[in-house]
Amino acid sequence: MAKKAMYNQEGLEKLRELIKDVDIAMLTTQTAEGLLSRPMKTQEVEFDGDLWFLTKKDTDKYQELQQNPDVNVAYVGKSYVSIRGKAELVESLDKKKEIWNEAYEKLLQTSYDDPNIILLKVEAESAEYWESGNMAKKMVYLVKRMTGNEPDSTNMNETIEL
Amino acid sequence: MAKKAMYNQEGLEKLRELIKDVDIAMLTTQTAEGLLSRPMKTQEVEFDGDLWFLTKKDTDKYQELQQNPDVNVAYVGKSYVSIRGKAELVESLDKKKEIWNEAYEKLLQTSYDDPNIILLKVEAESAEYWESGNMAKKMVYLVKRMTGNEPDSTNMNETIEL
Repeated sequence: MAKKAMYNQEGLEKLRELIKDVDIAMLTTQTAEGLLSRPMKTQEVEFDGDLWFLTKKDTDKYQELQQNPDVNVAYVGKSYVSIRGKAELVESLDKKKEIWNEAYEKLLQTSYDDPNIILLKVEAESAEYWESGNMAKKMVYLVKRMTGNEPDSTNMNETIEL
Repeated sequence: MAKKAMYNQEGLEKLRELIKDVDIAMLTTQTAEGLLSRPMKTQEVEFDGDLWFLTKKDTDKYQELQQNPDVNVAYVGKSYVSIRGKAELVESLDKKKEIWNEAYEKLLQTSYDDPNIILLKVEAESAEYWESGNMAKKMVYLVKRMTGNEPDSTNMNETIEL
């Protein structure tokens, strides 16, 4: 993956505001059969460009993500947010401890130091959102790439697609 | 695509009940960049294995779907539903007229006979759902295939993945 040069701070803030109260996101992955999505409890730590989830190693999605890291994370709440990114499975006891809370304990029925629990980090690359009452699509390019493959502007761009 | 031999009626009914009050679904498609999702107004006609949406020909998703028909349709409401299927773009004035209503008129700002409006049919192949309060995953195989690639049972199968 291209190295991040800088974040689009305005875009990050907008997304942070849109997703902060959505407790469960839909994570879509590619599998040999097609596209699958499933609900994932969202992080309480503030969004800084990476989304953090917890999963278990003995699940299909753990296998799927190792084969194909392209994912989409959709937040359905007062607005609709689609975040495109790459997933990475991360082993870090410190980070697990940081994001662990009672909701995960109840959902996953274990503790953060269970070696079967692994972090799923999604590095957000771009996002689109639709505010309710105004279904015009808004695009957010989150990172300006060193490689310059993304459009030049790091500002929020608004496009319309119905 | 394999020819459908028979539907899993029990599965269809369960899904119908779960999705009927969700007005907007998230449709995820594969693109050269990764996975994108967007909100789509859902049909009012009863779900019989096919999901129907309306879109415009002058959109990215029209292009994307012609290149890669694998999609996921996620319904977030009282429960979480993930439907895996193949998309097909269908030209049918009669069908457009059948599913057209005032909400589409407002959203798409045109009429059903606009040649830029096209039907997007998603043939559902399998579905998974999670009921709120019980996050155990439930699988529904919707069609028993002639080719026999799908598991033998056409009944609902319950598997657990957290």
